[in-house]
This record gives sequence, structure tokens and C-alpha cells, in this order.
Amino acid sequence: MSDAPLRIGLAGLGTVGIGVVQILQRHGDLIAQRAGRRIELVAVSARDRTRNRDADLSGFDWESDPVALARRADIDVFIEVMGGHDGPAKASSEAAIAAGHDLVSANKALLAHHGQALAEAAEANGCVIRFEAAVAGGIPVIKALTEGLAGNQIKRVMGVMNGTCNYILTRMQNAGLPYDQVFEEARQLGYLEADPNLDVGGVDAGHKLSLLAAIAFGTRVNFDAVELEGIGSISIDDIRLAADMGYRIKLLGVAQMTGRGLEQRMTPCLVPADSPLGQLQGGTNMVVLEGDSVGQIVMRGPGAGMGPTASAVMGDVIDIARRFRISTFGQPARNLVAATPARTSSPAPHYLRMTLLDKPGALAKIATCLGDAGVSIDQMRQYGHSGTNAPVLIVTHKATRDDIDHAIGLFAGTGVIVGDPVAIRIEEV
Amino acid sequence: MSDAPLRIGLAGLGTVGIGVVQILQRHGDLIAQRAGRRIELVAVSARDRTRNRDADLSGFDWESDPVALARRADIDVFIEVMGGHDGPAKASSEAAIAAGHDLVSANKALLAHHGQALAEAAEANGCVIRFEAAVAGGIPVIKALTEGLAGNQIKRVMGVMNGTCNYILTRMQNAGLPYDQVFEEARQLGYLEADPNLDVGGVDAGHKLSLLAAIAFGTRVNFDAVELEGIGSISIDDIRLAADMGYRIKLLGVAQMTGRGLEQRMTPCLVPADSPLGQLQGGTNMVVLEGDSVGQIVMRGPGAGMGPTASAVMGDVIDIARRFRISTFGQPARNLVAATPARTSSPAPHYLRMTLLDKPGALAKIATCLGDAGVSIDQMRQYGHSGTNAPVLIVTHKATRDDIDHAIGLFAGTGVIVGDPVAIRIEEV
Repeated sequence: MSDAPLRIGLAGLGTVGIGVVQILQRHGDLIAQRAGRRIELVAVSARDRTRNRDADLSGFDWESDPVALARRADIDVFIEVMGGHDGPAKASSEAAIAAGHDLVSANKALLAHHGQALAEAAEANGCVIRFEAAVAGGIPVIKALTEGLAGNQIKRVMGVMNGTCNYILTRMQNAGLPYDQVFEEARQLGYLEADPNLDVGGVDAGHKLSLLAAIAFGTRVNFDAVELEGIGSISIDDIRLAADMGYRIKLLGVAQMTGRGLEQRMTPCLVPADSPLGQLQGGTNMVVLEGDSVGQIVMRGPGAGMGPTASAVMGDVIDIARRFRISTFGQPARNLVAATPARTSSPAPHYLRMTLLDKPGALAKIATCLGDAGVSIDQMRQYGHSGTNAPVLIVTHKATRDDIDHAIGLFAGTGVIVGDPVAIRIEEV
Repeated sequence: MSDAPLRIGLAGLGTVGIGVVQILQRHGDLIAQRAGRRIELVAVSARDRTRNRDADLSGFDWESDPVALARRADIDVFIEVMGGHDGPAKASSEAAIAAGHDLVSANKALLAHHGQALAEAAEANGCVIRFEAAVAGGIPVIKALTEGLAGNQIKRVMGVMNGTCNYILTRMQNAGLPYDQVFEEARQLGYLEADPNLDVGGVDAGHKLSLLAAIAFGTRVNFDAVELEGIGSISIDDIRLAADMGYRIKLLGVAQMTGRGLEQRMTPCLVPADSPLGQLQGGTNMVVLEGDSVGQIVMRGPGAGMGPTASAVMGDVIDIARRFRISTFGQPARNLVAATPARTSSPAPHYLRMTLLDKPGALAKIATCLGDAGVSIDQMRQYGHSGTNAPVLIVTHKATRDDIDHAIGLFAGTGVIVGDPVAIRIEEV
């Protein structure tokens, strides 16, 4: 290797950080052959120095303060895998850039909240920020979108990007268990973040979607504009009935640029059971990229875990070692536009579930409400029942959510509805 | 844009070439924003200047000789989308490199046959060769493997990489039609190469596999060592019976480094019906990448066609405009090792179909032969039949192909077999 080694400072020695150390220790020679130079870990930082970790750290300088690590003159790249969208993660990332170091981050929250400011600072200082590990774990989707599909106008980006939610939904379906029970299982298995709302509320996946949208559409990251709806209200009934109609329920992220503005949604959706998204089981992630020339590209893989996340971090580091220099979101940050958020989502078929009083004319009243709201019916099923209440399923033709909500508002006046109707978008994939 | 434009010479104005022209004309500004500089098509070349083409070419110089185009001093990148592994494609690619130009190629045959020599020449001259479009069309799999997963030791690469073969196999299954009839359909639909053996003989897909193997394992491209078997002998019976056991038959490429050497196979295999590979329908391609840290990444998308292939070409061109410089196969060509080809494939379960005379003890004789060859039985089914012959299906436990062939050789001496047994590997995916 004639080239000088690339020198790394690593902040965060949790699962991902240790995964990075392990890859560097195991594959130093292989990576040097591929990158054209050695990659040398110089110094590390973590909260607790005394904790027992699954790697020999004796060869690296220890910094108790990640900001001090980020400022060291003897590193080229600062890897931030601590997490958290403020505090040390933000301070040290800013310090690294201010010191002229490149930044590799696995921190979706940090980038979703401060991506624009960080990108502008990086470009002003001639640094790059890379964050493959922040979206869909080991799947090299940022690279595919930013580089591989760079000749495309991107039409739509979709993804199942929170493995815990997909685990819960597929486990509910496969075992026929209610949400609360599977949620508790997931908690005991350690699948949930300390604040479970980050997972089941869609926040974590929403962070990821907002980053993909910025790259796809050349817009400033706008996580606040992501329509967020978690999976907590998905019932086993809906999962069963959707399956009966040939669908699966997924926490699906969708971003697309429309005439009404930029649409960003992270909400439960029905997708066809035989589509790649519908077939996705367990904690695996999937991202779908649609471009005007390429058509549809589907990428599937592990969305979390030590090895996959460290693999993504190392892909970024090796790109930097190879001297690939690219703007944070695929084009200069100053060019990114502040897109108007679409106030309403694009029209789509919807799944409606409701319970009707078993009275003559009840169904006709519901059908009339839908018609009055401009919503037409594609399929309807009334299920056999005992007692006075009849479960009814309706799949509508394409309609806006506003029209669906309008119809549901009209239902209330009919006097034939028991409880609240459930409405879930059917995404055409 | 402060940077000088990247100047392109384009050889080949068939579907892919015109696709490239269309992307440049449609998205010139978008691409300039992303690449940081404009990409300018300077000159083009094709066999027939008078042919009517779906793009306005009046703004570009015309070269009747692609070699002259490749040598022009006013281009930076030579795009070769003519095809053919010798003749003008080879001569002009060599000329471009000799002139110090970067090469973007969609030509799997050229690279499978001459990749090592071209890579060495390119590196000696400081040029890069990129060939995303040569493998799996629009799927950015070369990028994922060479860059995104660069921190991994690659364990195995698999792929369904010939859309025509997958169209034929899935059409046979879905319509219950025999091979010859679907082959004829495919020919009439224009899905087949002029020499159909390139498709159905596995040659085209084998070229692609040999390129992925070189990157994955740091070895010299060795297409001649790919074990090739086409789909011409796959019967509708095997497709039906495999389905009955929960499998699909695919023309599957597999490359892996083993203790016995580098294994490269492009052969019909059974894969589980509910796996991503098993679910792949029609002309779509799929590549599976397995790394020691990342686990399994699956990529799915269009493997051919104007838009997808041009998208892949443009991804490479934009990388070059962004000044990403990388060795042809992900590390310097002189470092690539000449791997010993594995003489036999790794052990795997096998599907065996045979017809037995309906005599007492016939099945026992077959079972004895398998036992004598060291092959143990996982599942067996004897199907109902009329007449004197009984169709029998066996799924074996893991066995080498040599042991399977040994057993089949022993079958011949039993006197209870009618016709030739069929043996197909079951790839564990």
C-alpha cells in the first residue's frame, strides 16, 4: 500500500461499535486490498470504560469525551454510533466536521433532525457525511438510491424499515395472537427500544423515510412532515380479514413527489400478500425504489444487528478510503429545496371494516354514505355472525383519505354502526 | 457548475444506446446537479447511420468506426453498448483504454472473456472500467457487492440473471405447458437472443456469474470454469412434481469459495417455493449476496430492457463524473488470484425423479443403490399410476453430485428403472 492509512476515531462501543472493531480486526488485510490503503482505528470513546466488551481495545487510545475524540488531529474519519438526536452525538458530529473530518454515522434520529445543518457545515468544510447504516441496516440502499439510480427521476420510495414492527405484525398473523401479547413477547426478546414508541409508533422508521425522501427528491430533510401512525391499533381481526382478502398489513413508509407537494407517510397499509412486501416475514427490512428509467428495484435484508449495521458503516468508511466524495444527500445541500408537504395523501383503495346492526337496509345506508362521499366500492364481504351485529368488510376503489373520512363521518348519522369503523390504506405496490 | 463537463462517446445505438441518449436529453439538468458537472454526449457510432432511431442525434458527431470514436481526444468516457465478445466491441474498448479514456460497458461477454486483460490495461493507463449494466440489468448489484459490502468476506453469490429463462420456467409452471411450446412463444415475443443457446443454455447468465465471482472472491474472471447447464431438459413433469414438494425450478447461478476451490455453477436448481428466489416470476432478475457480517442481501429488479440497462450505464457514468475511481473488479487486477476451480460442487440435497417398473421390491432396490452410494433419503413419494410403471420422487439428504451420479449408475443394474432418472440439485437458500 503506497497510500497513507485512513485513520478512524470511533465513538460508541455498543453492539454496532464493537461490530466495526471486529470487522477491522478480522479483515484488515482484505479491506486494505479493496480500499487501496489500510484503515486504522486510532482512538475510541464510550461512556463506560470498564465495561466488558467483545473485542480487544487495548491498542486504541481512549477518549472519555466523544467531542475530544472528534477533534483529534490524528484522525481522518469520525464514526458516530452512539445514537440520540441531541447531546453527545450531535456535539461530537459537529465537532468532527468543524475539525475538517469526514463523518460516518448510523444515527437516523440525528440526521432526520439536523441533517440539513450538518450537510451544510460539512460542505463548507470540504467534509463528507455518510450514513448507510442509518437506513435499513445492512441493505446498501442509500448507495443504490444516491449512486446506482442517479440517472433516474425517482417516482416513489417505499419501505418496511422497522424490523420490530414487522416482527410483531407477522407474528400476530402467523400465531393468531393479539397485539398486546406479541408486543410483550417482543419486549421480553429485547426487540424494543427503551422508548417503544420509537418502534411501534413509527418514529424510527419515519426518520429513515425522511432521509430517503431527501435523496430521492432533492429536498431538505423534513421529518416533521412525515405522516406518522404506529401499529398499536392494528387488531388481529384486521390482520385476519385482510389476509382473507389477499392482503398483508405492514408498517409501510411511502415517499413520493406529487402535484400537491411531497408526500411522506409511515403508516400501516395493506399490500398484496403475493408482492415482495407482502411476503416479507419477521425482522427483515425491505426497500422499494422506483425510477423513471429503471422501473422497480426491491432490496431485502437485515435491518439491524451488530454484523449488518457494522457492514454498512464499513462500506461508507471504505468509500472514503477510496476517496469517493459525495454530497450528504447526493447533491449540494444548498440546492436542496424545502418541499411543500402534501396536505393529503394520494388517492388509493382503502380497506374498511365495521360492525353493522343486523337490521334491514343497514348495508344500503352504508353504501349510500360512501356514494355521497364520492367513494365507490370494489369489493364487499359480510361475514356470517351470531347475534345482532354483522362484521362487514369493504374494499373501495381509489379514494382520498379525506373522502374516506368524510364517508366515515356520514356513517355516524345512520344509526346502524356499532363502534368505530377501521380504515386502512391499500398501497398499490 | 464550475467543473468541466464530462464528455462521452457512445458506441452502439440499439435499444440500450438510445436509452442512454434519452436519459441524457431528458435529465441533463438533474444529472448535472447530482454529478456536480454536466455530462455531454459528444459523438456516437453505430453500424447503420440511416436507420430511424427514437432520439434526435443531430447534435452529436457521427463516427462510422467505433475504434475511431474510442480514440477521439475530445471524449473522457467511452460507452460500449454494441455487444459481442470480439470484433468491434473488443477493438474499440481496447482503443479507448489505450487512449486513456474510461470505459463503461454493458457487455458481459466481452468482460467474461477479456476482463482480466482489459482491467490490467486500464489500470496501467489510469483508467477505470465500469460494467453495472452487464449484470442483472437495472439492479445495482455490482455496486452493492464491490462497494456497499466491501467490509465483508463474501460467502456466496447467487442469482437468477437471465430473464428469458425465468420467463420460460414460470410460464411453463403457471400455464402447465411443455418447454418446447413456451420456448416457441418466447421466440415469437422476441425474448430470445439470435443464438438462443446464449439464453436457454445458460451462457449469458454464466458470463454474469463469472463477473460477480471475480469481485466477490478477488479472483480472475474464469468463465470457462463455470459449470453450465441450460433449461432445455427441464420437463413440465419436473416443474409440477417439484411444486408438489414445495419447490420451484430456477436457472440458478451460484458462486462460492470452498476448501476444494472456487465453485461456479449456472444450472437448474430447486429452491423453496416460499423463498424470494422461489417467488420470482417472469422476466425479473434476482441476485442474492451473502457476506460474513451482513448476512443475506436480496436484490430484485428488471434484468434487461432499454430503461433499466440505460439506468445502469448512467449510474456508472455519473460515478465517473463524481470522480469515483475504483479498480475494475474492486481491487487491483494484479492482485486477483487464479482460483483453482472446484472439480465437484458442494454437497446438497437432490431431487430425483424416476420411473420404476411396478414390481415387488423395485423401490427397495433403488433405496439400496442410494445407500450403497452413500446417499440417504429425506423424502420419498410414489405417485398413483395406471399401467405397469410407477413414477417415484426422492429428495435426498445432502450428497455430492458424484455420489448422486454413482447411485444413478447403480440404478441401471437393478433392471427396475424405465428411462433415465432425472437429478436436480436443491440449493439451500
